[in-house]
Amino acid sequence: MGNNIVQGTAGKIEINARRLMERLETLAQFGQNNHGGMDRPLGSIADEASRQWLQSCWQNELGLEVTLDAMANMWGSQKDINIEAFKHKKPIVMGSHSDTVPDGGKYDGALGVLMATEVVQTLLENKAALQHPLQLINFTGEEPNDYGVSTLGSKVLCGRWGQKEIDSFSHSVTGEPLTKALARLGGAPENVESARLPEGFAAAFLECHIEQGRHLYDSHQAVAAVSAITGIYRETIVVKGEANHAGTTLYKHRRDALAAAAEVILAVEDLLKKPQLEGVAVTVGHVEVSPNASNIIPGEVRLSLDLRTADPQKRQEALLILGSSIAYIAKRRGVEIKRNLQLNQSEIPMDAEVIAAMCEAAAGRSNPARQLVSMAGHDAANMARLVPAGMLFVQSTGGYSHCPKEHTRKEEITIAAQVLLDTVLLLDRRLS
Amino acid sequence: MGNNIVQGTAGKIEINARRLMERLETLAQFGQNNHGGMDRPLGSIADEASRQWLQSCWQNELGLEVTLDAMANMWGSQKDINIEAFKHKKPIVMGSHSDTVPDGGKYDGALGVLMATEVVQTLLENKAALQHPLQLINFTGEEPNDYGVSTLGSKVLCGRWGQKEIDSFSHSVTGEPLTKALARLGGAPENVESARLPEGFAAAFLECHIEQGRHLYDSHQAVAAVSAITGIYRETIVVKGEANHAGTTLYKHRRDALAAAAEVILAVEDLLKKPQLEGVAVTVGHVEVSPNASNIIPGEVRLSLDLRTADPQKRQEALLILGSSIAYIAKRRGVEIKRNLQLNQSEIPMDAEVIAAMCEAAAGRSNPARQLVSMAGHDAANMARLVPAGMLFVQSTGGYSHCPKEHTRKEEITIAAQVLLDTVLLLDRRLS
Repeated sequence: MGNNIVQGTAGKIEINARRLMERLETLAQFGQNNHGGMDRPLGSIADEASRQWLQSCWQNELGLEVTLDAMANMWGSQKDINIEAFKHKKPIVMGSHSDTVPDGGKYDGALGVLMATEVVQTLLENKAALQHPLQLINFTGEEPNDYGVSTLGSKVLCGRWGQKEIDSFSHSVTGEPLTKALARLGGAPENVESARLPEGFAAAFLECHIEQGRHLYDSHQAVAAVSAITGIYRETIVVKGEANHAGTTLYKHRRDALAAAAEVILAVEDLLKKPQLEGVAVTVGHVEVSPNASNIIPGEVRLSLDLRTADPQKRQEALLILGSSIAYIAKRRGVEIKRNLQLNQSEIPMDAEVIAAMCEAAAGRSNPARQLVSMAGHDAANMARLVPAGMLFVQSTGGYSHCPKEHTRKEEITIAAQVLLDTVLLLDRRLS
Repeated sequence: MGNNIVQGTAGKIEINARRLMERLETLAQFGQNNHGGMDRPLGSIADEASRQWLQSCWQNELGLEVTLDAMANMWGSQKDINIEAFKHKKPIVMGSHSDTVPDGGKYDGALGVLMATEVVQTLLENKAALQHPLQLINFTGEEPNDYGVSTLGSKVLCGRWGQKEIDSFSHSVTGEPLTKALARLGGAPENVESARLPEGFAAAFLECHIEQGRHLYDSHQAVAAVSAITGIYRETIVVKGEANHAGTTLYKHRRDALAAAAEVILAVEDLLKKPQLEGVAVTVGHVEVSPNASNIIPGEVRLSLDLRTADPQKRQEALLILGSSIAYIAKRRGVEIKRNLQLNQSEIPMDAEVIAAMCEAAAGRSNPARQLVSMAGHDAANMARLVPAGMLFVQSTGGYSHCPKEHTRKEEITIAAQVLLDTVLLLDRRLS
């Protein structure tokens, strides 16, 4: 089985790019703020409304049967079909998420959901003779949000979280329990375990997503198969000095936690410059200063450390270098620096057969068979615990992500949708 | 007139140190939190209750007539006296404030009010034959607070603020207008202009205050006359980079506002190390990071700059050096750094005759005639716009200030009270 067969099949089935672009614009109406950003966090009115729109689209325009599991993950399945008619009964599942970060963009998540929608609709319209049923999914709460959770729906699907975890979260501003938000979205939060899926429940899971970086943009390429999803390591770094009066405390008596924290921030940034740590992304994104008053020398500063790599040895080395920098800063300044581990999530390789099919499909549409590591977490990392999973990256214009400037051109979207469709056709033949 | 006469007078009148220490402990009961800090900010229940206690003390234990002006500044005046009996009718005014910063100490403000109280009570008990009437004042809202104001009462007394300013402030958390808090404390906030005082309304204003630094502590001295109150210069430094994804943005594409801000913080700290800037205190105490999420590269950081010196030329030089450091950081990193002036308050010299009297009184009690610049702002800086004003600093153990560790020993308090009393006697003879 080679390119010829793929081309032969794929050449005949073309997605409807105009319809896909129109749906992207429609979904972007939900939660759009006054400067073009998207505010559609988990459980918001915009989240609820956009999900209702999507449900109606799947039901009325694709003719799918839509169900919500206990986590309010939205599933779209072929209706009124005799599942026995399929040679292989396990579905090929495709999808992503429709929620956004605060002031996010129009493409992160939304594109993956609507591209999967377009691929399924095109295949159904073309009455493609598939061996596997197709299934769509729109995951609940993929993005970080005020309930303190992310990739929420898929975490429960794959069993990483259960009832206990779900019961423990609440909204940091309103105090609303997460369970209440899930119930509002149509979930059954008193029985979240029922959403859990067995290993091998599907033949494959496929997710298309914007790259969120500039590798494809800089090389003028449309798509890449994701080879692995990065490991994410997070800690809180707490710098303790001594709060004192900004006017009356002489330099020799200062133990300024903020000045020490500034050195830590620059030591973290230094890791990015080391050639041997290429491929390691490390960031201080969150800062809390106490007491945070202009006329008081800061007594305590809390920093977040976010370190990502698909290479455990590089993570090890980066932490070693940082550790010795921090020890030196603490000693020289007479401040205490504590480090509290928050998260140590391993890298997750994508399925080799899915990667191969994506590369082949890309080549079949005259694109280089490129692979990239995903430096962001995705629902696909959780799905990979259950079934062969793969992700298709599509170019982000300028690499912008999680912001109103996030953009992907129609040209690249069209190529990606076509490659995703061709990947489904290839996998349909190859997977059991 | 020289030391002999002072010693002759002062030697006979001794303050009651036990009474003073007991009142300090009593006042410290109002708003004391569970780790020994004081929470008595403007308008709080503790502020209100402590003021009622002080009013009753002045009325019942000193026999003073207590009045509140429109700003709720509390005045204690000699009652039922024939003011015509005084050779000079303008009063010698003494006092400080009883509010505190959040989690502040027992001495800042409180000691000044209660030491003035003790000096007046001792002089009245001893029927000292004074040429000027005595008056006590407890200023409203000296400390920074959630209404966004400080040295509030004295700012209105001296005409720096009027009705317009007072009407414009409200509590950052509760939203309560400042006027409502003033009304609760017994002021007449609809008519704040009535609190304004004419130049020369008093013969002198004296305030005793803890040093809030370690000059006296390190040299084992009890007191110093304040030569000048520092100028305070404040700006907000806004660093604009570009928010982007912490995982997917390569180093060469990052414009990390926080890493740039870290360099600014260290450039500010560097000013403290320059020998030619001795006596300049400069601090970044407040930081706001946006969007402040662990997985997003910071796009904007706002820093406060607080720069204090009694020497305008040194301020000029410090700002020049900082300006060139900031320009270099902005250029090298491709970020934008804007600086917005918030405050540029000149240094205020204390009255030479008051300083001389304090030094003489200190020497008369076997203390060196020391002078220090106050690196903190005080109500005395506002009073100096109206009348000859002076401040007496008393040693702060370890230099701690605005925190629960703030402390002054009974030994130094006793010396300071005695010196303050002797200063009143000296000035009473010398001032017209």
